[in-house]
Amino acid sequence: MDPMQETPIITSRDNAKIKYACKLAGSAAFRQSENAFLAEGLKLCPELAKGTTLKVLYYTERALEKAPELAALPGEHYLIQEHVAEKLAGVQANQGVFAVFEIPQCSVDLLKAGGRYLALERVQDPGNVGTLLRSAAAFGFDAVILGPGCASPWSGKTLRASMGAAVRVPVIEVQSMTDTIALLREKGVACLAAALYNSQLLSAVSQQQPGGVCVVIGSEGQGLTQETVDACDSAVRIPMTDRAESLNAGIAGSVLLWHFRGEGL
Amino acid sequence: MDPMQETPIITSRDNAKIKYACKLAGSAAFRQSENAFLAEGLKLCPELAKGTTLKVLYYTERALEKAPELAALPGEHYLIQEHVAEKLAGVQANQGVFAVFEIPQCSVDLLKAGGRYLALERVQDPGNVGTLLRSAAAFGFDAVILGPGCASPWSGKTLRASMGAAVRVPVIEVQSMTDTIALLREKGVACLAAALYNSQLLSAVSQQQPGGVCVVIGSEGQGLTQETVDACDSAVRIPMTDRAESLNAGIAGSVLLWHFRGEGL
Repeated sequence: MDPMQETPIITSRDNAKIKYACKLAGSAAFRQSENAFLAEGLKLCPELAKGTTLKVLYYTERALEKAPELAALPGEHYLIQEHVAEKLAGVQANQGVFAVFEIPQCSVDLLKAGGRYLALERVQDPGNVGTLLRSAAAFGFDAVILGPGCASPWSGKTLRASMGAAVRVPVIEVQSMTDTIALLREKGVACLAAALYNSQLLSAVSQQQPGGVCVVIGSEGQGLTQETVDACDSAVRIPMTDRAESLNAGIAGSVLLWHFRGEGL
Repeated sequence: MDPMQETPIITSRDNAKIKYACKLAGSAAFRQSENAFLAEGLKLCPELAKGTTLKVLYYTERALEKAPELAALPGEHYLIQEHVAEKLAGVQANQGVFAVFEIPQCSVDLLKAGGRYLALERVQDPGNVGTLLRSAAAFGFDAVILGPGCASPWSGKTLRASMGAAVRVPVIEVQSMTDTIALLREKGVACLAAALYNSQLLSAVSQQQPGGVCVVIGSEGQGLTQETVDACDSAVRIPMTDRAESLNAGIAGSVLLWHFRGEGL
């Protein structure tokens, strides 16, 4: 940005750019058609800018005073008044920093022999999707596959829970989980369903999967669909004492990811 | 309960028993002086009753219709009107089942050579304390030690996140973490601080700890106090790629607990 050029100010909540940003925040379908998402946060926006294209950045005077480094970020910049920030945030308490980013485009073409993948089916809780994206990035996974019924990785809640991991690990949204599993198996990637029935104990499954591995995790309440379990090579479960009925999906998934972590970790 | 005897009904929000229950829900100090806590939930209350003494059970007509098995639980029983349930819950949306339970009394006398322990210091988030209690129970730990500054294990939020694990794994609240670590080390238990500085990679630490192990975890933001790190035998960290800055405390702790899980898991 040219430092001599003054940052334009948006004073109206009805400004077309603000309405557009709010629509991105509220509608997964609109995000998909625009190939863009809105994020909020003094720390989160600069973090996301490292991994994907920042298109437009909005900040309040208050935020800029607290974090002058915002001015150095790429993209179009706009100063916004506090009441405009409240509209973007949907709540009064907000950090005064918002940005529209490009959704990184990733397809199943990325999937390859020897890769490490996490696939989620019907994981509806944005906190769990975010946590699992973060763990997948931390433990050296090559991509996360999101099947039907999952929380959007580009919603505010998921972005917060993932701490921006969605732009650091490729996210591939697919229509059919069984087709994707078939594709992975053709490439020799071992597809392991997290399921209780007919499953091996995780501690008995080798951490080394030279052909690659895809850990497939289902909904918090109902688990995976039977077709998805059937499409996989085999099923695994985390052994537990009888003092616990179950684990939270984010925890169980992270333990599975840790088990199959990348080499050198 | 004598089935011939009719369950008394509480119709007033100002009933002394209701006020007492609300005070238990709101004050950690009162819970400690009364040695009792209040829990809410159609599934959670029966679950807790398996692990500790149920003193008083409150339910609405609606809840009893949905779960007639409530009538078979031990303790004193009271039917409550909906507006009384709202007072107990603090919110309108509630499941209409509440119970006062005895806090299981556990002390450092339980700590023994060869045991597996989790110790938390300044873990303030009730969700993280609850999650870690649940993982400790699932992975065969013998007790959880709560040092100063931790979220109360007997608050509503922690009880929900723990799914009742706090009565299935002994919880020992201690005043001094360094004294407790010294006591464990005297018994030959290896005390491992979760810390970044001067630490070994978890993958390089043997899962077998024949003398016993205590995993010590600190606050989400600041980690452990230096005195606590210094009191431990050594420090461990979870190896991560550079695509993640950190893990959520509940996730990181659960991965550590999984690594040091009980035999046969």
